[in-house]
Amino acid sequence: MRFVSFEYNQQHLWGIEADDGIYYSEKLLSIFPTLDAVIENYDELNINEEINQHISRHDVTLIAPFRPKKNIMCIGKNYREHALEMTNQDVSQIPDHPVIFTKSPGAVIGPNTPVDAHQQTTSQLDYEGELAVVIGKQGKNIAEADALDYVFGYTLLNDITARDLQKKHQQFFRGKSLDTFAPFGPSIVTPDEIDDVHNLALQTYVNDELRQDGHTSQMIFDVRHLIATLSDGMTLEPGDIIATGTPSGVGKGFNPPKFLNPGDAVRIEIEQIGQLVNSIE
Amino acid sequence: MRFVSFEYNQQHLWGIEADDGIYYSEKLLSIFPTLDAVIENYDELNINEEINQHISRHDVTLIAPFRPKKNIMCIGKNYREHALEMTNQDVSQIPDHPVIFTKSPGAVIGPNTPVDAHQQTTSQLDYEGELAVVIGKQGKNIAEADALDYVFGYTLLNDITARDLQKKHQQFFRGKSLDTFAPFGPSIVTPDEIDDVHNLALQTYVNDELRQDGHTSQMIFDVRHLIATLSDGMTLEPGDIIATGTPSGVGKGFNPPKFLNPGDAVRIEIEQIGQLVNSIE
Repeated sequence: MRFVSFEYNQQHLWGIEADDGIYYSEKLLSIFPTLDAVIENYDELNINEEINQHISRHDVTLIAPFRPKKNIMCIGKNYREHALEMTNQDVSQIPDHPVIFTKSPGAVIGPNTPVDAHQQTTSQLDYEGELAVVIGKQGKNIAEADALDYVFGYTLLNDITARDLQKKHQQFFRGKSLDTFAPFGPSIVTPDEIDDVHNLALQTYVNDELRQDGHTSQMIFDVRHLIATLSDGMTLEPGDIIATGTPSGVGKGFNPPKFLNPGDAVRIEIEQIGQLVNSIE
Repeated sequence: MRFVSFEYNQQHLWGIEADDGIYYSEKLLSIFPTLDAVIENYDELNINEEINQHISRHDVTLIAPFRPKKNIMCIGKNYREHALEMTNQDVSQIPDHPVIFTKSPGAVIGPNTPVDAHQQTTSQLDYEGELAVVIGKQGKNIAEADALDYVFGYTLLNDITARDLQKKHQQFFRGKSLDTFAPFGPSIVTPDEIDDVHNLALQTYVNDELRQDGHTSQMIFDVRHLIATLSDGMTLEPGDIIATGTPSGVGKGFNPPKFLNPGDAVRIEIEQIGQLVNSIE
């Protein structure tokens, strides 16, 4: 299934995307008003039986799936060529262990919402197209072999970054967490819809120019490894989001750099999962 | 006022600490069941008028004030002598701008709850006594001169850290976010109770041995500066927590290091704010 949140008649609802539109249920919405509540209670739900109200895609505006209850956990330098483009091709900077930082949930926006260029605060606005994992059940000390059982679904995330702030403040949080810096969604796709999450093409376009042409098979630490590492001593909870890192081709990786400017549009596509488009304003 | 959360008759309640015990209100609890809801709606409340039920301190167990809705924002190397002890006395490592990382809200515990030593995961368990700021109202691009108007209150935080993980994963999040690594509270003290937040003694004891003997006047970036920096482009929200960094005297700063072991007890004291005690298990 492909879960989405959307605005309809000035209400925020969630439902299931299908070829002929979106299906939702007023009954389920009355019990679980947001998608994170659905994820937290998924075991008790029989979505297919309940969801039977239909709406056209043209009558709704897709929004962010939900606002997470903690920061988004992001993996830095998780693609070899990206680690190299960020470090002047210094192979000693390819990480031996996952580099984990976070983005504020206050930065979350959906598709169809512009990213604020924050021109008073940064002159190095950059994009990072990423596969994001949404955790479906609580777990701690999860073995790699079991890790994918804890996944509710997969979606897209644009890890918008102010490169100058990222550098100036050493730890990445501030450069990653300005308002609107976490476009996310629109569809959360359950694993049964995806052949192999480690075999998906990932592209990022800026104004239709292909910038990132990567593949999830190129991750240094795959989804199983990331879940095992993060859950080692730290309980993962339903609704937690792990952004798995970005391939090479970010703006800072070009010479001269190709940072984002107001008026640009960024489109991320991941095979079988969907696309996420945001303009810069 | 000194706000606390506590367990009484297997219920989690909040109230106000006074010399003769704790005062609470069933009416207010029915509308605002947790302290973060109080903070979010503080403008509408008339606490003094409503709170009139009394309970003895001996009949309750203090717990963490609340579970934050996003990660705790922490400032690294914000005391000069601590920056030096962490970097082999390298003065070039004293930061020019605040170093900001986060701790998971899932790691929050209160006083009277043991810190898990996580001996399977770390062999370098360390303490960091800190003044924590609780934000009281929404704000963005806040000027330093106005910054203290956005503070709901002050409390204590022990920024428990696995030094080996902090180093191994480069970015600090993982070494700071294992379960139970964020003891916090117990009292959130409103600013009117404090003469000058930048003039408070801060001590940390391990098993009654004084380890950190600092003073909030020694912060490199004071509370005003931290609020101004964090809110530059990022909206601060009621209930956000900023841990303002730790003075010198952490376990790693000794030669040989004095890391924590099961059975140890850590006590942090900040003048006019209170004390936070947690054992290690």
